[in-house]
Amino acid sequence: LGRNIVELGMVHDLQVQNGKVSFTLALTTMACPLRGRMQDDARKRLLALEGIREVDISARAMTDEEKAKVFGKSGQEQGSAAAHNHIKHVVAVMSGKGGVGKSSVSALLAVALRRKGYTVGLLDADITGPSIPKMLLSEPGRPMGSPLGILPVESPSGIKIISINLLLADPNQAVIWRGPLISGAIRQFWGDVLWGDLDYLIVDLPPGTSDASLTVMQVLPLNGIVMVTTPQSLAGMVVRKASSMAEQLASRLLG
Amino acid sequence: LGRNIVELGMVHDLQVQNGKVSFTLALTTMACPLRGRMQDDARKRLLALEGIREVDISARAMTDEEKAKVFGKSGQEQGSAAAHNHIKHVVAVMSGKGGVGKSSVSALLAVALRRKGYTVGLLDADITGPSIPKMLLSEPGRPMGSPLGILPVESPSGIKIISINLLLADPNQAVIWRGPLISGAIRQFWGDVLWGDLDYLIVDLPPGTSDASLTVMQVLPLNGIVMVTTPQSLAGMVVRKASSMAEQLASRLLG
Repeated sequence: LGRNIVELGMVHDLQVQNGKVSFTLALTTMACPLRGRMQDDARKRLLALEGIREVDISARAMTDEEKAKVFGKSGQEQGSAAAHNHIKHVVAVMSGKGGVGKSSVSALLAVALRRKGYTVGLLDADITGPSIPKMLLSEPGRPMGSPLGILPVESPSGIKIISINLLLADPNQAVIWRGPLISGAIRQFWGDVLWGDLDYLIVDLPPGTSDASLTVMQVLPLNGIVMVTTPQSLAGMVVRKASSMAEQLASRLLG
Repeated sequence: LGRNIVELGMVHDLQVQNGKVSFTLALTTMACPLRGRMQDDARKRLLALEGIREVDISARAMTDEEKAKVFGKSGQEQGSAAAHNHIKHVVAVMSGKGGVGKSSVSALLAVALRRKGYTVGLLDADITGPSIPKMLLSEPGRPMGSPLGILPVESPSGIKIISINLLLADPNQAVIWRGPLISGAIRQFWGDVLWGDLDYLIVDLPPGTSDASLTVMQVLPLNGIVMVTTPQSLAGMVVRKASSMAEQLASRLLG
């Protein structure tokens, strides 16, 4: 975000006594994927100071008031960038089954809409198996920070892309996260990314009907779902499970 | 299990006062997928009794001592059946990527080992997209209960199979569970199923490196992992993530 954690109002209850420093780190969400890194960085920098022998950092989530103070508006469920985003249509691409072509359909849908002149974003909600950067970016850049939120990476044709693999140092690195962290990352991709004005935001879902799909259906204002399958009866069975989930959560099937 | 919840020592702190019944239901694990159903059933049956106006049921997990009393041995991490199981080798089939053939490899591996004369079990750890029953059972039966644990369904050639789809009334029904329930189901498939004497237990993992894979690697005594991929570089990237996970969790890659 281009500001340090003190300026961002994330440091509370600071105490220094006999070479021991303790404080509470207030995070936008406890599921913040950078939590461990921020704590480690702060600890290292403090221990490098003369006279500091011990560092004790606890963490908590920011209150809505604190978020509003830092980000200049009500934080609520959504992060700082959401207030600046104007997204007309949100379409999720789902399947339940793996390897049927969800990411290909997502990418081609984004390209087709872009060629028709629309402004298009692509949110890769497959946190443990992200395919979008490799499909659309020959030389993936890194998302940059801005005072208003994370800036997505743009494809050569102007599609705005966010994916966990754009944030990893090594694209082969495993993201070994349990459900709450997966959900937290998806919430941040929605609320903390400065998408700006978009005609369409395409959301590429992972296989399964667990945390990622649930979070996308519960948190994002979906206009509809594109369901992808292949002709095998085995794929059909698993895809019918996904359709049943969409039905139960009142999401509209577009095709 | 063929015994009622009172006999199983699951009912505690029973109080009846002025037509109000309250008790605590002690479950083998709080992630028990039947928790809601047991509570609902108990409530319905109690309200059907004359003079009962109100029913209040709380839930908690059994202590190890309680489990030992009910199941005749130390409960610990594992359920009742685990003490009666003697499994020589546990092999997980993994990929990270969906649709590359994990379930086909699992099923064919089980068939090949069975043809060589070994006793073989197949644990379908893909809770949201289970493929094994459709691959190996032309007319899937239902797992039966026994005093010692859940009995797996046997394929015509004698492979013992457990899968969430054998427990659902409709195979197209979606299992919309967040991570903790997914993990709970896998723990039960391991600890509460009466596998008996097995030379090999094959575990078919879902795509991804989240809850299901983590639970299998942390709870089951894996002898090794078979990693499945296809020739595309995109699949390779996601499969390398899974290999990196296996490495971090000290699981041996067999091939």
